[in-house]
Amino acid sequence: MKLVSFDVWNTLLDISVMLDELAVSIAKIGGICIIDVVDAIMTARNEVKRRRRNLEGDPDRALEESIELLADILDVRPEVVRRATAMAVLNVEEGIVIPGAEEALRGVKEMGMKVSVTGNVMFWPGSYTRLLLERFGLLRYVDVTFFSDEVRAYKPMREMFEMPLREFGVKAGEAMHVGDTYAEDFEGAINAGMWAAWINPDAKEIRKRGERGFEIPSVDRVVDVLKSIG
Amino acid sequence: MKLVSFDVWNTLLDISVMLDELAVSIAKIGGICIIDVVDAIMTARNEVKRRRRNLEGDPDRALEESIELLADILDVRPEVVRRATAMAVLNVEEGIVIPGAEEALRGVKEMGMKVSVTGNVMFWPGSYTRLLLERFGLLRYVDVTFFSDEVRAYKPMREMFEMPLREFGVKAGEAMHVGDTYAEDFEGAINAGMWAAWINPDAKEIRKRGERGFEIPSVDRVVDVLKSIG
Repeated sequence: MKLVSFDVWNTLLDISVMLDELAVSIAKIGGICIIDVVDAIMTARNEVKRRRRNLEGDPDRALEESIELLADILDVRPEVVRRATAMAVLNVEEGIVIPGAEEALRGVKEMGMKVSVTGNVMFWPGSYTRLLLERFGLLRYVDVTFFSDEVRAYKPMREMFEMPLREFGVKAGEAMHVGDTYAEDFEGAINAGMWAAWINPDAKEIRKRGERGFEIPSVDRVVDVLKSIG
Repeated sequence: MKLVSFDVWNTLLDISVMLDELAVSIAKIGGICIIDVVDAIMTARNEVKRRRRNLEGDPDRALEESIELLADILDVRPEVVRRATAMAVLNVEEGIVIPGAEEALRGVKEMGMKVSVTGNVMFWPGSYTRLLLERFGLLRYVDVTFFSDEVRAYKPMREMFEMPLREFGVKAGEAMHVGDTYAEDFEGAINAGMWAAWINPDAKEIRKRGERGFEIPSVDRVVDVLKSIG
């Protein structure tokens, strides 16, 4: 294996910590009851995820689409959502880092492989996610990052998985993608010809899943998978 | 006057503070001598400014173009520049706020006008600039923000100036743009039919400049200009 590509949300960083912070910020700026904001975020999130699973989202407006959807449901200007994401990024704390994330990244680097972060965006731009990875000391292990608003493609689109491969001239069969969302991460990577590790917290142990697939209970176990392949 | 649009860099925030921080970060991440980094930033900056003045830049790649230009000159991956901008945003301090910026924004708000931030981007995305405006307490006075990487237009393009007008249904003759760059801000706004205030630190007093133009020695003086028009 020459390259490992990591999803971000619920793989390296905890999405619920960020969404809680976002809800608080929107409630504050928009003067809206927080229960309604949390509801709206969940509704918008499910809709965006559904569109992407079906490859219905416009890759050119991956971020704008999600912001507008949320703003529409809340009946506020998109600017309220934009400002709230800035506030949330400033206020989130260290607890956002998934246990084992740093060990996973460091472990892969120490095995001499290239590390990519390959992430979809929703509500806030990839640049904010990059900032959080830097702030909490994870970006130092990362060679390259691809976020859907910057590269205008999203997982499970094949092009998205091919970007880190092209960057380092690596073949799909020499690379593994790790992530928690079955359709976006696992199926997407397998369909692109890569190896894939699906993080499933309900799994008790590492399990094989098809020819090039694995199920792992937590992100740090990717190192064991990589060692077992050799 | 119903709306005032503000440029960001050298109008509300000091670009030299941010570029110094960026140079330090690139030197650190890329292992490059800081003198060479400062040189490269200046070269890339002049080239981007020249292209925009002549409307030669691709509005669809306003940010990417500037990052790639700087990375090319430095012979590093664009990812080095991207990570360095995140680091710089995390490290800049309060001194980045231009004296009088908060007074100007608050003054305009208190006169009951809408406030827009209308900014070109270079090296880092508009989202980082929005984060800095929030972090240093300026975004609370702002009703809407337009950054060229998000709206895919740049000053002095007419479309860029028309965005805040359209947002609030305001006519060009009822709005003023304030900024420090003569071609991008002053000429651009005048050509779009707006009033314009050009910040020229060499000016000693407020001076008229053509039918709808003013020269002001510092950003806070825009309030005096607005009062004089009535």
